[in-house]
Amino acid sequence: MTNRQRDIFAWKNGPVKLFLDYIRRYVELTEEEEVFLLSKVKTRKFLKGQFVVQNGEVCKYENFVLSGCLKAFYIDNEGQEHILMFAVENWWIADLGSFISQTPADLNVQCVENCELVQINYNDLQQLYVVIPKLERFFRIIIQKAFVAAQKRIVNNFTLPATDRYLQFREQYPLIEQRVPQYMIASYLGITKEFLSKIRSQLISPKE
Amino acid sequence: MTNRQRDIFAWKNGPVKLFLDYIRRYVELTEEEEVFLLSKVKTRKFLKGQFVVQNGEVCKYENFVLSGCLKAFYIDNEGQEHILMFAVENWWIADLGSFISQTPADLNVQCVENCELVQINYNDLQQLYVVIPKLERFFRIIIQKAFVAAQKRIVNNFTLPATDRYLQFREQYPLIEQRVPQYMIASYLGITKEFLSKIRSQLISPKE
Repeated sequence: MTNRQRDIFAWKNGPVKLFLDYIRRYVELTEEEEVFLLSKVKTRKFLKGQFVVQNGEVCKYENFVLSGCLKAFYIDNEGQEHILMFAVENWWIADLGSFISQTPADLNVQCVENCELVQINYNDLQQLYVVIPKLERFFRIIIQKAFVAAQKRIVNNFTLPATDRYLQFREQYPLIEQRVPQYMIASYLGITKEFLSKIRSQLISPKE
Repeated sequence: MTNRQRDIFAWKNGPVKLFLDYIRRYVELTEEEEVFLLSKVKTRKFLKGQFVVQNGEVCKYENFVLSGCLKAFYIDNEGQEHILMFAVENWWIADLGSFISQTPADLNVQCVENCELVQINYNDLQQLYVVIPKLERFFRIIIQKAFVAAQKRIVNNFTLPATDRYLQFREQYPLIEQRVPQYMIASYLGITKEFLSKIRSQLISPKE
């Protein structure tokens, strides 16, 4: 093994393995393509509370979560925070509108826990699409799924009572409830913390 | 010109030209690729009121609108209709969740006017992705835009008053307001017809 091969081996079997495994679920890359892909991404650690995207600044990276938990949120004119999504291991998070147009972001993305992310910047991703067209397929498939989930959420917000939306949240994000404070879940559901607390106690003791 | 060339020429310069022009905005296809693509799609006319997708049945086609206007909607347990989106010329419409998984649809897609659509069925689209990988790119780009719009709608529904959501609707669908009945716009906005009518009269005569 050359030094370079040893480096690549160590890198591919480190934390970034989760990222490669995730991509392998959708497309089959050659050894060479995997090495090129890894040469175009970087991993970065963030502390709880740090911002990965800030509104008013261009979202430079698509972010894949290796570990930790993040939230994407919008701040309204009254300064109130509205959580659009959470992301944990194996999820992607960014302000996609800002990223694809390279214009200032409307959203904020902030770490709810210490995080490690794989980051791909805009220009590198455009190059990756050209060199590894299979990545067009990969991103086409995962964005379709994200779109279907977003449409479902629009329908649910119109049609389901808050209790059912809470149950759906627990189904969609099974591991998050224990990891984030209740007020964030309430913000995601568009209800008050007090109302969420009432829903939860009714689900635990439905006869009360 | 052979008969076949004449046929292709006539087809490409008929109504389907709108479809080719739309694709050409995003990717450049060779003459051969365009001919192959056209061999895998069909155009179909629908009358006002006809269903293109019905809930409970598998959504067989991705649909591109050559002419006319359609709505995608969800019917809740009380039988009430909730409009998720409209589509006019140059828009795509389907129950994407049903289409990509080939499982029964939750949504309905119905013609609000007489329509002409370009339809691509699931198996043909999978073949098109393999033969013309540029179409992966094309669909990746348009679905990203649709996802960004869906996320924006979730945020707006949480944060904007109904009047502002109505103004945003007029911006997003500038040509639709004159084409669909008011109760459909109210359904899209998640408000009553009466409330929409109040908003509109306040916008026309703000001092009243």
